[in-house]
Amino acid sequence: GTPFDPSNDPHRRYNPLIGEWVLVSPHRAKRPWQGQSDEPVNDQKPSYDPSCYLCPSNTRVNGEVNPSYTGTFVFENDFAALKKDTEVTSEKSGLFQFETEQGCSRVICFSPDHSKTLPELSDEERKEVVDCWKAQTAELGEEYTWVQVFENKGAMMGCSNPHPHGQVWAQKHLPTDPAKKLVQLKEYFATHQRPLLLDYAQQEIDKQERVVCQNDDWVVVVPYWAAWPFETLLLPRFDVQSMANISESQAASLASIIGEITARYDNLFETSFPYSMGWHSAPFDSESHPEWTLHAHFFPPLLRSASVRKFMVGYEMMAEAQRDLTPEQAAERLKALPVEHYKKREN
Amino acid sequence: GTPFDPSNDPHRRYNPLIGEWVLVSPHRAKRPWQGQSDEPVNDQKPSYDPSCYLCPSNTRVNGEVNPSYTGTFVFENDFAALKKDTEVTSEKSGLFQFETEQGCSRVICFSPDHSKTLPELSDEERKEVVDCWKAQTAELGEEYTWVQVFENKGAMMGCSNPHPHGQVWAQKHLPTDPAKKLVQLKEYFATHQRPLLLDYAQQEIDKQERVVCQNDDWVVVVPYWAAWPFETLLLPRFDVQSMANISESQAASLASIIGEITARYDNLFETSFPYSMGWHSAPFDSESHPEWTLHAHFFPPLLRSASVRKFMVGYEMMAEAQRDLTPEQAAERLKALPVEHYKKREN
Ligand SMILES: O=P(O)(O)O[C@H]1O[C@H](CO)[C@@H](O)[C@H](O)[C@H]1O
Ligand SMILES: O=P(O)(O)O[C@H]1O[C@H](CO)[C@@H](O)[C@H](O)[C@H]1O
Repeated sequence: GTPFDPSNDPHRRYNPLIGEWVLVSPHRAKRPWQGQSDEPVNDQKPSYDPSCYLCPSNTRVNGEVNPSYTGTFVFENDFAALKKDTEVTSEKSGLFQFETEQGCSRVICFSPDHSKTLPELSDEERKEVVDCWKAQTAELGEEYTWVQVFENKGAMMGCSNPHPHGQVWAQKHLPTDPAKKLVQLKEYFATHQRPLLLDYAQQEIDKQERVVCQNDDWVVVVPYWAAWPFETLLLPRFDVQSMANISESQAASLASIIGEITARYDNLFETSFPYSMGWHSAPFDSESHPEWTLHAHFFPPLLRSASVRKFMVGYEMMAEAQRDLTPEQAAERLKALPVEHYKKREN
Repeated sequence: GTPFDPSNDPHRRYNPLIGEWVLVSPHRAKRPWQGQSDEPVNDQKPSYDPSCYLCPSNTRVNGEVNPSYTGTFVFENDFAALKKDTEVTSEKSGLFQFETEQGCSRVICFSPDHSKTLPELSDEERKEVVDCWKAQTAELGEEYTWVQVFENKGAMMGCSNPHPHGQVWAQKHLPTDPAKKLVQLKEYFATHQRPLLLDYAQQEIDKQERVVCQNDDWVVVVPYWAAWPFETLLLPRFDVQSMANISESQAASLASIIGEITARYDNLFETSFPYSMGWHSAPFDSESHPEWTLHAHFFPPLLRSASVRKFMVGYEMMAEAQRDLTPEQAAERLKALPVEHYKKREN
């Protein structure tokens, strides 16, 4: 055979954050696609939609009326997956084991403007969103072990309403994925006396092979072990464990870099780029967490165009995640894009 | 609060097969759905499609011509994710770790008839598919550690061609998910001197709360820890580690129960039910695997109807899998359905 070429030959990369591998098959991107095409999202929405249950002053499904809010607006999810008063009990008998869960689930409207998404808001408006995430994390962390701030953007990602919004779910138990991270991060810290993700951020900044954008406080990389085609990891360049602990100026620089990465995303295929994003702050469990670094994941499904996505199915569901282009190729493409949102340029 | 009711209150269930939890939020099924609807698949396809690259005698993308096959037909994937001659090398430097992978990836056509799917074939035709899986597993197990037989059914599951087919990917390394299972199954075997999945099958057969169908050799359950709404687990009722080792009569009874579960699936929403399914035989690593039990997973995405699916996004991507009805409710619905395929009844 010929010598190994990482940009062309199949290999596996190790994700030290969760202790799992991903199969990289870069040559797969060359295959023609004859499968499902999704509807690209390119329609201009009105700033106010009378039928939207998230717009100011509108009535929700359960009859409640939204205030005529002007910035962000938070309310309890009308169909919450978690409830605060579930009876606490658990049982293990043979191979059947359960525990009840207490928690809450809230919706966070990012803006009263129905037509806008995160990259289309101003830095000041995005800063309000960051402040809201920070306040929610601090408040819910008083009562719950895990506070999961996230956004599902786009119908392709199961989002049932185009009004700009995210969610926060909080619960008593540490969920599966953060529990894996806790093990990995503690192990690394025990060996190196440094948080894994701070070391990682520095190594990526030194290499500049997978960095998409950075400012004084934050850096966005396509991680070396990315599973989704254009997956990114947003990391601080300073030691911080929780969204609850970022400063005013760090919140402002965060608002700015979120504007940048989401605009690059939209510019990639000139479409409102779908994704799930979410924040991992350290667990609120009355321990200190020097091993932990606050970070956010963006998991976007698109692969080839505004309408052709990557399917994590079959082999990926049964064996392990698999990707069709290298993280370096993905970073290169995102980095080459303008920061100005394509809708602005078109006007 | 009121006493815990598992069919209504949020709780977590433990999956002992991979050592992870799933959040069950049964009351969520009551929320109205305003999100994406997918196109249900109900068109009648021709038995032969001149533009299909899997039909007998047709020319594929790479110029090769299919034989005029009459039963199953296997060929090397024209855009394989794995190659047999990748140079063997690996590296770990800081947080960057990779290893190259060798393997192969084949397509398995189930039938020359373009219009048929697994539940629409006869037991004899399905037995040929089982025999083919068995032969492929045995052959590739000679060279590779892991042999992943799977089927992606339906455009919703990333299947790019409706011709009835599956795939088999084989590789030198043990992938992430089977590696997790190996740890869990070995641990259970060390404690109980019995394979976990054989014990589990017996416990489910005794309870009859989640059994969808069974025959003398096999049983299909919605596992207690199912993540996908109508996920099922197909288990043998006898001690067997690998697809390569099932007998003639066990292959026949397997063909029959696969016909039954896939017909029930199609009957649920009277649509060609999309899913990813796959077989986990013990690793071929020159060790014996008394802890392992051959089994298959079906992961179907549909939740409410032929066009409304479950999205494993946001919370599920960041925290842990979450489901909106209990496994018992799902099993009840599948069990109540007729076994005869709805298309046959309609005629
Ligand atoms: O090989 P296919 O059918 O073209 O592709 C499909 O199955 C593969 C294996 O599960 C996945 O990696 C692809 O994302 C999916 O679209
Ligand atoms: O809460 P929503 O937006 O109605 O629903 C969406 O997000 C949830 C949390 O990620 C998921 O469980 C749902 O499957 C998805 O459709």
